[in-house]
Amino acid sequence: MLSDIEIAQAATLLPIKEVAAQIGIKEDELEFYGKYKAKLSDELANRLENEPDGKLVLVTAINPTPAGEGKTTTSAGLGQAMAKIGKKAVIALREPSLGPVFGIKGGAAGGGYSQVLPMEDINLHFTGDMHAITSANNLCCAMLDNHIQQGNVLGIDPRQILIKRCLDMNDRALRNIVVGLGGRVNGIPREDHFIITVASEVMAILCLADDISDLKKRLGNILIAYTYAGEPVFAKDIKADGAMTALLKDAIKPNLVQTLEGTPAIMHGGPFANIAHGCNSIRATKLALKLADYCITEAGFGSDLGAEKFFDIKCRYAGFKPSAVVIVATCRALKYNGGVPKAEVSAENLEALKNGIENLGVHIDNMRKYNVPVVVAINQFGTDTAEELEFIESYCKSKGADFALSNVFSKGGEGGTELAKKVVEACEKPSDFAPIYSDDLTIKEKVDKIAKTIYGASRVNYTKAAEKALKQIQALGGEKLPVCIAKTQYSLSDDPTLLGAPKDFEITVKNLTLSNGAGFVVVYTGDIMTMPGLPKIPSAEKIDVTEEGKINGLF
Amino acid sequence: MLSDIEIAQAATLLPIKEVAAQIGIKEDELEFYGKYKAKLSDELANRLENEPDGKLVLVTAINPTPAGEGKTTTSAGLGQAMAKIGKKAVIALREPSLGPVFGIKGGAAGGGYSQVLPMEDINLHFTGDMHAITSANNLCCAMLDNHIQQGNVLGIDPRQILIKRCLDMNDRALRNIVVGLGGRVNGIPREDHFIITVASEVMAILCLADDISDLKKRLGNILIAYTYAGEPVFAKDIKADGAMTALLKDAIKPNLVQTLEGTPAIMHGGPFANIAHGCNSIRATKLALKLADYCITEAGFGSDLGAEKFFDIKCRYAGFKPSAVVIVATCRALKYNGGVPKAEVSAENLEALKNGIENLGVHIDNMRKYNVPVVVAINQFGTDTAEELEFIESYCKSKGADFALSNVFSKGGEGGTELAKKVVEACEKPSDFAPIYSDDLTIKEKVDKIAKTIYGASRVNYTKAAEKALKQIQALGGEKLPVCIAKTQYSLSDDPTLLGAPKDFEITVKNLTLSNGAGFVVVYTGDIMTMPGLPKIPSAEKIDVTEEGKINGLF
Repeated sequence: MLSDIEIAQAATLLPIKEVAAQIGIKEDELEFYGKYKAKLSDELANRLENEPDGKLVLVTAINPTPAGEGKTTTSAGLGQAMAKIGKKAVIALREPSLGPVFGIKGGAAGGGYSQVLPMEDINLHFTGDMHAITSANNLCCAMLDNHIQQGNVLGIDPRQILIKRCLDMNDRALRNIVVGLGGRVNGIPREDHFIITVASEVMAILCLADDISDLKKRLGNILIAYTYAGEPVFAKDIKADGAMTALLKDAIKPNLVQTLEGTPAIMHGGPFANIAHGCNSIRATKLALKLADYCITEAGFGSDLGAEKFFDIKCRYAGFKPSAVVIVATCRALKYNGGVPKAEVSAENLEALKNGIENLGVHIDNMRKYNVPVVVAINQFGTDTAEELEFIESYCKSKGADFALSNVFSKGGEGGTELAKKVVEACEKPSDFAPIYSDDLTIKEKVDKIAKTIYGASRVNYTKAAEKALKQIQALGGEKLPVCIAKTQYSLSDDPTLLGAPKDFEITVKNLTLSNGAGFVVVYTGDIMTMPGLPKIPSAEKIDVTEEGKINGLF
Repeated sequence: MLSDIEIAQAATLLPIKEVAAQIGIKEDELEFYGKYKAKLSDELANRLENEPDGKLVLVTAINPTPAGEGKTTTSAGLGQAMAKIGKKAVIALREPSLGPVFGIKGGAAGGGYSQVLPMEDINLHFTGDMHAITSANNLCCAMLDNHIQQGNVLGIDPRQILIKRCLDMNDRALRNIVVGLGGRVNGIPREDHFIITVASEVMAILCLADDISDLKKRLGNILIAYTYAGEPVFAKDIKADGAMTALLKDAIKPNLVQTLEGTPAIMHGGPFANIAHGCNSIRATKLALKLADYCITEAGFGSDLGAEKFFDIKCRYAGFKPSAVVIVATCRALKYNGGVPKAEVSAENLEALKNGIENLGVHIDNMRKYNVPVVVAINQFGTDTAEELEFIESYCKSKGADFALSNVFSKGGEGGTELAKKVVEACEKPSDFAPIYSDDLTIKEKVDKIAKTIYGASRVNYTKAAEKALKQIQALGGEKLPVCIAKTQYSLSDDPTLLGAPKDFEITVKNLTLSNGAGFVVVYTGDIMTMPGLPKIPSAEKIDVTEEGKINGLF
């Protein structure tokens, strides 16, 4: 089979205005970025404001394994398959970060015959949203250090600066740095840290903002530091909010692209799924719901992290009511969860499958707790045996979930028609979505609810540092905000080695921070890497450009 | 009078495809970025390859004063005026950096009724070229530190790393930093520095590259470090050149925008005029020459820095033959050069004018040394008296230069028709452009030639450090490259306080560095700030966005 980039480069793309026309978008509602990318104007959002919404379908997954489950591929393929069965669908996805592209993961625009195009552009600078976020974040940081340098009227304590600079790059050398060296004219020396752009609160805000005014308000509310007197300092206090908003005036507009089969895809925003909420922008999802009968969207990592936050943060803020959830799994990943080493997952092993499928079981149960019908999509591999697949199917049915095999990687939309039909059926079933906790619970009660109901923990412990941080957040009025739990994606617990469906485990909260602009409290149950490093042989080494300007080595 | 942004926002822009059509560009040769910006495709460059060139007109200036002389305004206005007198002109300018926009200077797209539009976009992210350069530069840095972290096969000495990280931001806290702190998994601790993106060698390379292959070759040739054994390490040695080129595949394409009067303007690239060559890209100028009868372009700072490098670096590499030079000056700036303090330049003062005009005299003489006809453009102010202007006019004529008053700031193209006519006449005069020095002189001979012929120095001294650096550069084969002298822009000498036309001064070279990818040797005659800081009240504090998405406070 051809590589992803070979398939992508062999494709004939539709001019983006034709893709737009399919879903009733007029040419003057587009802001073109080349022939195959466009931003969707505010005028379009205004025109559609009172149109009825389509059905919202969330694609999520079991706990991810090193092999990857193909969630974005399934989302793209499901969108393509919807067209094959005569349904009008729009895909709403996150946009990729440059860091993983040059690091170990490669691109993030689907794979095989279920990709979003133009994949080179999407995986490189796309329409510049990431860079705009980087600039807005770093402008705030520069203004903050400048405020201290120029007399520090607010009395900001350089030892208590919370906002970090960012770059859209995997660069471990910038994790822990000292800035402001070189004497009086070169700033105040202090410890600082760079994070990757997608981990910034500005990214989370862009994805939650209703409109430009709400964006500005949220940016102004970012808690950036404390004073020597212990008072909070917000971005608006150093007058950074206006210019930050100006830098994001185009980035806030969703981007329209297409799949390999010409299905409209809106890609917009891409926050981390641990320290942030891990799904594309509210504005993009809103538009997709207005533009089609089915909006297919996805959330980061497994359902314990991504779907929980999609439901409890994004849907809460936006008022979305999902009609169905697709849980992506592979037979291989279920065996891995059953204790089979990565190298042996291709061999038939019903025993391991029986153990590992408990992981899928928990994800099905969890999604049903939100009162939304569930379809399990098994991303099929040639090594899966009939017996294994039958076992998974009957297990899903016993759990009250629909089941479909998916071959969208190798066959495109045609390989996803069974899944598409099941999803359409699921959307017709009764559903009554509600978040798992209400706003008026305390932070501890919210964490408790998620830990026990979703993760299956028996108890939540708080370190002394966490207790202290919690008090500070309560004092700042954060008690009524939703919580965003930062946890390993590899396990339902906070221990990445506990695969399957761990029981009788405790969760330990080590710290809490207030994302005051985004509007949630981040609850840390472990060390979360917010600036990845490059591997020994970075993907970047293989990327090249031919004399004709064609890119090779992206995958 | 209205502010620049008020004038810009009141303007009715032509769709960029109509601007393109004026100069024979077909719609499918454009890559749109919204309705009013487009990148010019490689297909266009290929189609025009064998078309005859128009006339090349360089706009330069006397030594800049704190008030600013209005060079970009004059360039835009001259382009507009050309249309008024029935000539087909294209303007080729640099693109602005975000740093000054948020710092002290404000925007850089002209002013008054001679602006390039859409000014908000141009002054913010434009088409993303700056961000692409930032990413390409920083990817190389991340790969370099990663190479050291992952075993350091090449034996790179962390104390001898030459390439610096960059951001398009004024951020003094990042001038001198320590990276790689936090222990074994977080990199190798070392001193590092951020520079502003426009000061990076990647920017200089983008502006000098012929095509994508040449770009890749030059990027690969950047000297990034030395090994413990003293051997040079180039970007290609860590396999960074392919991915860097991929990141720049769109940035290498020139951008088409328009002036307030619909004159086509190509804005592309913007390197520093001290440590780099200070003019827009060769590719953009080449295209402009093919597309119109007159290409009006500009170079940074005064003619001693900008025009010299335009002639001796850019024209040398591109084979350009300029037909005329416009030197922009103001009556006020000439009085300032004659010793009048900034606060008093509005009052008539013929004595000061007589002293200060010597500065203009040197610039006229210098431009004539390149065998190109000279037109002096006096950017007129209401406070200039008839007697003062008459004096300047007769002085210019005595020096063999044409003279014209320019009122393009307040009147647009109509205020520049006299200047436009003089420029057209100058282009018909005999000219025989040649660089001031030949390739085969040694580096010291080249520096000597510029210092004595252009600056008027009596002697060039070298510090011990400079002598050592020179030997290293010679050993690397840099002796035959053009030189790029980094010097204060405020004086013809290397002392910023020596205004007017200083005599009998010596120049001291403190250091030399090899821009091996760009293809020149930077010769430092003083400390050059490559990462500006924000002022006490940054412009950013005044920038805001209305609910309708309109930007205020940019100027």
